[in-house]
Amino acid sequence: MAWNTNLRWRLPLTCFILQVIMVVLFGVFVRYNPEADAHWNEEKKKHNISSDVENDFYYRYPSFQDVHVMIFVGFGFLMTFLQRYGFGSVGFNFLLAAFGIQWALLMQGWFHSFHDGYILIGVENLINADFCVGSVCVAFGAILGKVSPIQLLIMTLFQVTLFSVNEYILLSLLQVKDAGGSMTIHTFGAYFGLTVTWILYRPNLEQSKERQSSVYHSDLFAMIGTLFLWMYWPSFNSAVSNHGDAQHRAAINTYCSLAACVLTSVALSSALQRKGKLDMVHIQNATLAGGVAVGTAAEMMLMPYGSLIVGFICGIISTVGFVYLTPFLESRLRIQDTCGINNLHGMPGIIGGIVGAVTANEASIFVYGQEGLIKAFDFEGSKSNWTPRKQGQYQAAGIFVSLVMAFVGGAIVGVILKFPLWGQAADENCFEDEVYWEVPEVEKNNSYHHEDTTLKPVAS
Amino acid sequence: MAWNTNLRWRLPLTCFILQVIMVVLFGVFVRYNPEADAHWNEEKKKHNISSDVENDFYYRYPSFQDVHVMIFVGFGFLMTFLQRYGFGSVGFNFLLAAFGIQWALLMQGWFHSFHDGYILIGVENLINADFCVGSVCVAFGAILGKVSPIQLLIMTLFQVTLFSVNEYILLSLLQVKDAGGSMTIHTFGAYFGLTVTWILYRPNLEQSKERQSSVYHSDLFAMIGTLFLWMYWPSFNSAVSNHGDAQHRAAINTYCSLAACVLTSVALSSALQRKGKLDMVHIQNATLAGGVAVGTAAEMMLMPYGSLIVGFICGIISTVGFVYLTPFLESRLRIQDTCGINNLHGMPGIIGGIVGAVTANEASIFVYGQEGLIKAFDFEGSKSNWTPRKQGQYQAAGIFVSLVMAFVGGAIVGVILKFPLWGQAADENCFEDEVYWEVPEVEKNNSYHHEDTTLKPVAS
Amino acid sequence: MAWNTNLRWRLPLTCFILQVIMVVLFGVFVRYNPEADAHWNEEKKKHNISSDVENDFYYRYPSFQDVHVMIFVGFGFLMTFLQRYGFGSVGFNFLLAAFGIQWALLMQGWFHSFHDGYILIGVENLINADFCVGSVCVAFGAILGKVSPIQLLIMTLFQVTLFSVNEYILLSLLQVKDAGGSMTIHTFGAYFGLTVTWILYRPNLEQSKERQSSVYHSDLFAMIGTLFLWMYWPSFNSAVSNHGDAQHRAAINTYCSLAACVLTSVALSSALQRKGKLDMVHIQNATLAGGVAVGTAAEMMLMPYGSLIVGFICGIISTVGFVYLTPFLESRLRIQDTCGINNLHGMPGIIGGIVGAVTANEASIFVYGQEGLIKAFDFEGSKSNWTPRKQGQYQAAGIFVSLVMAFVGGAIVGVILKFPLWGQAADENCFEDEVYWEVPEVEKNNSYHHEDTTLKPVAS
Repeated sequence: MAWNTNLRWRLPLTCFILQVIMVVLFGVFVRYNPEADAHWNEEKKKHNISSDVENDFYYRYPSFQDVHVMIFVGFGFLMTFLQRYGFGSVGFNFLLAAFGIQWALLMQGWFHSFHDGYILIGVENLINADFCVGSVCVAFGAILGKVSPIQLLIMTLFQVTLFSVNEYILLSLLQVKDAGGSMTIHTFGAYFGLTVTWILYRPNLEQSKERQSSVYHSDLFAMIGTLFLWMYWPSFNSAVSNHGDAQHRAAINTYCSLAACVLTSVALSSALQRKGKLDMVHIQNATLAGGVAVGTAAEMMLMPYGSLIVGFICGIISTVGFVYLTPFLESRLRIQDTCGINNLHGMPGIIGGIVGAVTANEASIFVYGQEGLIKAFDFEGSKSNWTPRKQGQYQAAGIFVSLVMAFVGGAIVGVILKFPLWGQAADENCFEDEVYWEVPEVEKNNSYHHEDTTLKPVAS
Repeated sequence: MAWNTNLRWRLPLTCFILQVIMVVLFGVFVRYNPEADAHWNEEKKKHNISSDVENDFYYRYPSFQDVHVMIFVGFGFLMTFLQRYGFGSVGFNFLLAAFGIQWALLMQGWFHSFHDGYILIGVENLINADFCVGSVCVAFGAILGKVSPIQLLIMTLFQVTLFSVNEYILLSLLQVKDAGGSMTIHTFGAYFGLTVTWILYRPNLEQSKERQSSVYHSDLFAMIGTLFLWMYWPSFNSAVSNHGDAQHRAAINTYCSLAACVLTSVALSSALQRKGKLDMVHIQNATLAGGVAVGTAAEMMLMPYGSLIVGFICGIISTVGFVYLTPFLESRLRIQDTCGINNLHGMPGIIGGIVGAVTANEASIFVYGQEGLIKAFDFEGSKSNWTPRKQGQYQAAGIFVSLVMAFVGGAIVGVILKFPLWGQAADENCFEDEVYWEVPEVEKNNSYHHEDTTLKPVAS
Repeated sequence: MAWNTNLRWRLPLTCFILQVIMVVLFGVFVRYNPEADAHWNEEKKKHNISSDVENDFYYRYPSFQDVHVMIFVGFGFLMTFLQRYGFGSVGFNFLLAAFGIQWALLMQGWFHSFHDGYILIGVENLINADFCVGSVCVAFGAILGKVSPIQLLIMTLFQVTLFSVNEYILLSLLQVKDAGGSMTIHTFGAYFGLTVTWILYRPNLEQSKERQSSVYHSDLFAMIGTLFLWMYWPSFNSAVSNHGDAQHRAAINTYCSLAACVLTSVALSSALQRKGKLDMVHIQNATLAGGVAVGTAAEMMLMPYGSLIVGFICGIISTVGFVYLTPFLESRLRIQDTCGINNLHGMPGIIGGIVGAVTANEASIFVYGQEGLIKAFDFEGSKSNWTPRKQGQYQAAGIFVSLVMAFVGGAIVGVILKFPLWGQAADENCFEDEVYWEVPEVEKNNSYHHEDTTLKPVAS
């Protein structure tokens, strides 16, 4: 199982071709939407908009920037916990996300922002593109350290495509609500990635087991990722909600859920270790499950205590998953899940879908008010005769659709990635930056002492 | 002095019980405020609000996120300077803050947002909860490396309670202005923490002296904390100020004060070292004192030059404190202050209270305008007959109340934490992550070379 | 070439004198602008402003904070890639920026915000001060590791002055558009810094060559800087654009350009290495060139595909520059450019100026609309008879003025910095923190094992 990992011509060509295609498609299709176009002043007059502050930019740009940080620093650094794969974690995540957001602008644009032959983009499109790429970052976690950058670009190409189709089915056909993406981003991304890694199963991966662990400083780098994900998750779940109360509420609910999740993650981490010591893996990952699991319901009237309960449960499930389920999946089901994405995104994503379905099902005029209920679930136009119960059923259907899309899509993409053409590393070279990176010399710690003697400052 | 540090059942139980209590109390008490509730549309009509952008979310959410980063990344990473306590610094800070914000939402909610039996929360409550927890993070700095996570949770429980009482006395009874919390957050937090560490005095702490210092990379991790605190401090001091000019002014003043503080910190750091070399401890900490010291007055008409003067002075005092006062406090007064919080939060906090009192005292219609003066100090309703002079006197009283609350509260909590039940470490094991964390194997630097030989990429 | 590097009195004195001058000048000149002044309520009535949300603070503060992060964390950490200069990179950048923003508030204030004897400042001034300092951070990159903090403060004093003059010529006299500063910040900053380093040429710099490289973890620290620059660059280029569509469009264009730039940087990095491996230097730097190169045109109707093309080209040019041009400049032209700023800021800055000139030249009523064209280029008042063609010509002139100012100013400042008075290090001590910092003991990795034996937790 020793392939050629020299990417000298294959990686440049892949990048170039993809980027040229992007340029051409953007040239043909992508323009600014009215709020980003120089005709905005005329638009303002036409729609009687009194102030520039009504431009969607001011409603959503701060959230966009937070989401942007989550995708690039959050996911990128979260995966630097591996002792010898920091460059690959943060660097390949950077590469696939930079490509993915362009392709997502197109794919999502054709489905949702296509007018008169053009995709008209604005800040909400940027957020949605980041969201879409988020699901690729999730899947990356399962195969981290075992694939080449070419494989990642190919996976991104297909996963973004399938994500957009799935998202279209859920949001436009099933008319499901999923502002924070429990189903579209996390459930889909996780089970897509798990299916891919199942197909890419490496029987001799224990040959690089020594590198599949952290060192002291790599765990601290990973905490940078964890904390930026944790802190900005309220922005993630509220970024594309309706203006006003929905955005406000989504941020509050996510804040609450995440806080509760930290306490139960810590509790379980300590309880499941013989000496009661905490495990950094749980602190880095399980503490985030609460954000995943309120993704769908955060903008609904979940209530602060409802959010706490969701976070409470997910901290437990996620930590237990890391301790018992991940080893089981690897040894019995041959699913090698490097970052444990099933615990952080998979199960909490499904829970999030269920919480969303139940919360929608329980919605009532008493809680939302007449107008509020209509606005929260778009019960107008073609949906004017919908009931919360029907909404709940469609929400539940959304979970299944996402899972089916993930399994089928992941299987197809996994088979494509299995071809021995993409520069993947041998089993004994996994989790090692030297394969794809020029890695600087070893940190010569003793050299500090030697250097002291080379310092010859002149006495004053 | 060797206690049992095995937390296997005690830590999980503490976390669970606290979190269950939170769920129950949130269930009974916490609801959304009208701006986050689904009835917002009706609220808009009732109060003739023309646009969603008038929702407080859009005024305060960007500041909230900055404050959130300060609490979790800022304080968390600032304390990672210790060579073997990075996990504890960032991890325990994460734990206590996640619990503290929930308890703060309740405590502050009962005092300030209680309507018809419910605490109604919105984005301002989230900011205030973060603020409250900020004072616990400050106190944590004094006892860093010497306490168990259980002790930290207990301290958080009590300190948040006392903080809220103190805050209520200052803001509601004394009607003091303290938007950036020089008194309520920094003075209270610092002297509370110093009193706790004084009571928890460890006579044989020099046994772990070798670990109470930094290494090269831990100092760089700490700079992440320093810079995020420094950069976002303008948001901290302006986050809960009145809409409009007050928020704007608070950000400007804090920006100015912090800039000046950097230069005098650097100056003193160099001047006080025999060879004129800079000390990272000062750069990491003293540069922030300017933000603390304009906490009260930032929203007032302190003037940019006034802010520069405050920052100028605090950079000096703080650096001198690190060089002379901290060793003195430890050797003579038995106050072991791990992070030197007296220099960063204690003295600058008191200065901030004084600056606020003086600035309020000097306020005049000439400077503020008739309307501006009333709005800046709420000189209407029950305060309609107040003068700037009276405001200044009450501001001064606020400093003393905060100090008394800190000393008394810290003493009580210190005694509680002294019980040998909470899993604290022995003196020779302080500042060591191994006590409470599964720490990965030593970073085998030479192994990088060995690994090279295991890399067998096939030549193309 | 061994100077006295003991800065004990020189550095403190420099800091003190500069800071005292700042306090005095701020006292004489700087006040709040009407939006930050307590008279804001009266201002609102006077100008019929209906809501506090119209205060410029709410339009620009989120962008300001992002820019602030770029200057202090972005530039600071980007330069920590050197194995033994992390303290100097992040610490000296902190120092020079903290001084520079004060001096920039004054210099830019005199030119652009001077009313009735006072400089009236608001959030836009803070952004512009950060921008101005950004050009100093750029120049710092060329001389990183080879100068003392005193030299940096002197350079900042002069460079901020010259920046402000150049900016005044471009923006006010030539009436050029340059919202993201391709010309004023990057072109000027880069060629200023390159001229300075040319004059400070060190013939024996290879004596410290072993330290002029990275180690594994220092490269990860640098990626923190890279990513925060990359993520927040859309805020940078849009921060001072007109409210509404211009800010919105600038963010979109920058997002697109940066995404494309990542793919071509990766492509070239792999293509130019013998084994196709990626070089961290390129990932850290060339990926950002796309942000520099749309600085001028981002707010114009560059179109998303136009942005992609700009990013596409700059990723190539920048990476090729690192591989071929930097070594050439050093060996043949005696330009020692530590961070390769010519590749990241110099060439992309010039390209950005050209792209801006061309885009302005091509502007038409068809694309912008009547009103949009006038608003985008201020074609009213004294410019009411301008055509896009004339705007384009003036834009082109702006590039040349910036280059001339940079070369002349850099030469003068270089000569000043060459005096052997400022505590610069000898050639063999460059890129070494020990010269100016108290550096902690070597990281004793083996000690972790020894410590294990000192842990004596009592069994439960």
